[in-house]
Amino acid sequence: MRRVLSGTRPTGILHLGNYFGAIESWVKLQDEYECFFFVADWHALTTGYEDTSNLREYTKQVVIDLLACGLDPKKCTIFVQSHVPQHAELHLLFSMITPLSWLYRCPTYKDQMRELKERNIATYGFLGYPCLQAADILIYKAELVPVGEDQLPHLELTREIARRFNFLYGQTFPEPQAILNTVKVLVGTDGRKMSKSYGNTIALSEDLESVRKKVMNMVTDPARIRKNDPGHPEVCTVFAYHQIFSPEIVSETEEDCRQGKIGCVECKKRLFENISRFLEPIQARRRELENDLDYVLGVISEGARKAREIASRTLQEAKDRAGLL
Amino acid sequence: MRRVLSGTRPTGILHLGNYFGAIESWVKLQDEYECFFFVADWHALTTGYEDTSNLREYTKQVVIDLLACGLDPKKCTIFVQSHVPQHAELHLLFSMITPLSWLYRCPTYKDQMRELKERNIATYGFLGYPCLQAADILIYKAELVPVGEDQLPHLELTREIARRFNFLYGQTFPEPQAILNTVKVLVGTDGRKMSKSYGNTIALSEDLESVRKKVMNMVTDPARIRKNDPGHPEVCTVFAYHQIFSPEIVSETEEDCRQGKIGCVECKKRLFENISRFLEPIQARRRELENDLDYVLGVISEGARKAREIASRTLQEAKDRAGLL
Repeated sequence: MRRVLSGTRPTGILHLGNYFGAIESWVKLQDEYECFFFVADWHALTTGYEDTSNLREYTKQVVIDLLACGLDPKKCTIFVQSHVPQHAELHLLFSMITPLSWLYRCPTYKDQMRELKERNIATYGFLGYPCLQAADILIYKAELVPVGEDQLPHLELTREIARRFNFLYGQTFPEPQAILNTVKVLVGTDGRKMSKSYGNTIALSEDLESVRKKVMNMVTDPARIRKNDPGHPEVCTVFAYHQIFSPEIVSETEEDCRQGKIGCVECKKRLFENISRFLEPIQARRRELENDLDYVLGVISEGARKAREIASRTLQEAKDRAGLL
Repeated sequence: MRRVLSGTRPTGILHLGNYFGAIESWVKLQDEYECFFFVADWHALTTGYEDTSNLREYTKQVVIDLLACGLDPKKCTIFVQSHVPQHAELHLLFSMITPLSWLYRCPTYKDQMRELKERNIATYGFLGYPCLQAADILIYKAELVPVGEDQLPHLELTREIARRFNFLYGQTFPEPQAILNTVKVLVGTDGRKMSKSYGNTIALSEDLESVRKKVMNMVTDPARIRKNDPGHPEVCTVFAYHQIFSPEIVSETEEDCRQGKIGCVECKKRLFENISRFLEPIQARRRELENDLDYVLGVISEGARKAREIASRTLQEAKDRAGLL
């Protein structure tokens, strides 16, 4: 069975954007592949080292989110990155053979340096995080990596590092390929990109009353003043959400909106019902998990054990080939 | 007892320059402090990753050299860096908080980029090696580090990283101080700096006949043509060696040379005798160790065990403070 690896940063609890951007596909992948999913706490430090007061709690909550969404520890390995020291060791080995120029030319490096310029992220670790990603993937000799399109340059860099290692020290690592997520991009409640830094997310664990308020405050077609004005669903955030949460009524809703047959308030109420229907089972499972933290911690420790078992084999092989005693 | 840490790179077997530059003082330090001495194989990769064919053998030979010179595993801990994964983990943690600018401004960075420009050392790991050094030192919370003067900027960087970590996450690391070696700088057999890349070294394990040839070929005062011409010991490589190897005859030799009473050939013969007298017990001990590789490997594995015990405590503390789960 081919091996898949993917990770998510515990920079906060998971929200609907994370779910449709990645987790939904992970839940499917666990049935088809040998999957390793990890909470990338080292990576969270690359941009968040200045305030780590919530890191421990977020790491735990993200594992709970993943389990609540349907990841099954019997089908896949779920672990926390920093619990597997071999990631750090292979990262150090890769650092020796990775030209600085490869890292500087990463498009995300320049983007984030610009976007996060109020934080002091011009650190050695931030520059090197694609090198850490390469270690994350190759320590399991993963062949497939589900990524968004923006992550393709990093995966290319992982392949380049694998090729360089293989060239210098002999064939060791596969060149992993992308599984391009057929991602449903979910905009934020204000119509912009969903992002914690914009405060426009809906968390998987969010109180439904809070969800209701966010939905009722969503921006709709600004050209629609009165209920029976014809609407333009293509510019409406509520309609964007219906496309994901209300497949059974989406064409009817589109028609009703264009013809001014349905008011925005009514339309939002329907959306809220459908989001609630989606969130309720996840939140019920979440409550069970929060009442059984021993189980969650057991999943984390068993996942680390399984991950370390494979990672230590790869590391030993890589160190042998690189000529270390 | 205060803790001392120092390391040497296994870029070759040890030579007389290494002995008088560091090892001689280590042998003294083991009686006064709790000492950790390591063979820095990760560091050897920063400049030597392109050809690691001898790395494993050099690593072993350097341990043999250290033992033959008088390091005593009962008094100090001798280990191989890559056998203690906590160095790599703390290095990764430090990478997150170390500004790139601190690394670029290291004087040795620019020096070596110039000196080794025929090798491809513009790698991520080469830039980051002062960060790895900081991890090497601080993972043992070492208070004292015997260094040459050229290494002082690196030790300052280690203190800066310790301060930054302590500032961000709470008091964790001491700020290590230098023990400035009262180094006897030994020039190479050609009068230049002793360096493997110049081919002007005398190895601790060098065959005495080969040593004899090197000594007899040493450059002396070029102004001295005939045996009874007055000599200038201050420009003579042989005399530089006498100062280290022949303390009991150094002033007599100086006088005889200035007055043209001793010929260079005779002077070299005396030097060779004294170098032999110095090397013989080391080489005898070396032969014993080479015939008992199990003992050597036992020292290496016991050293790693002791080092990991302390390193894992520090690492756990550092990860806890940084907020990792």
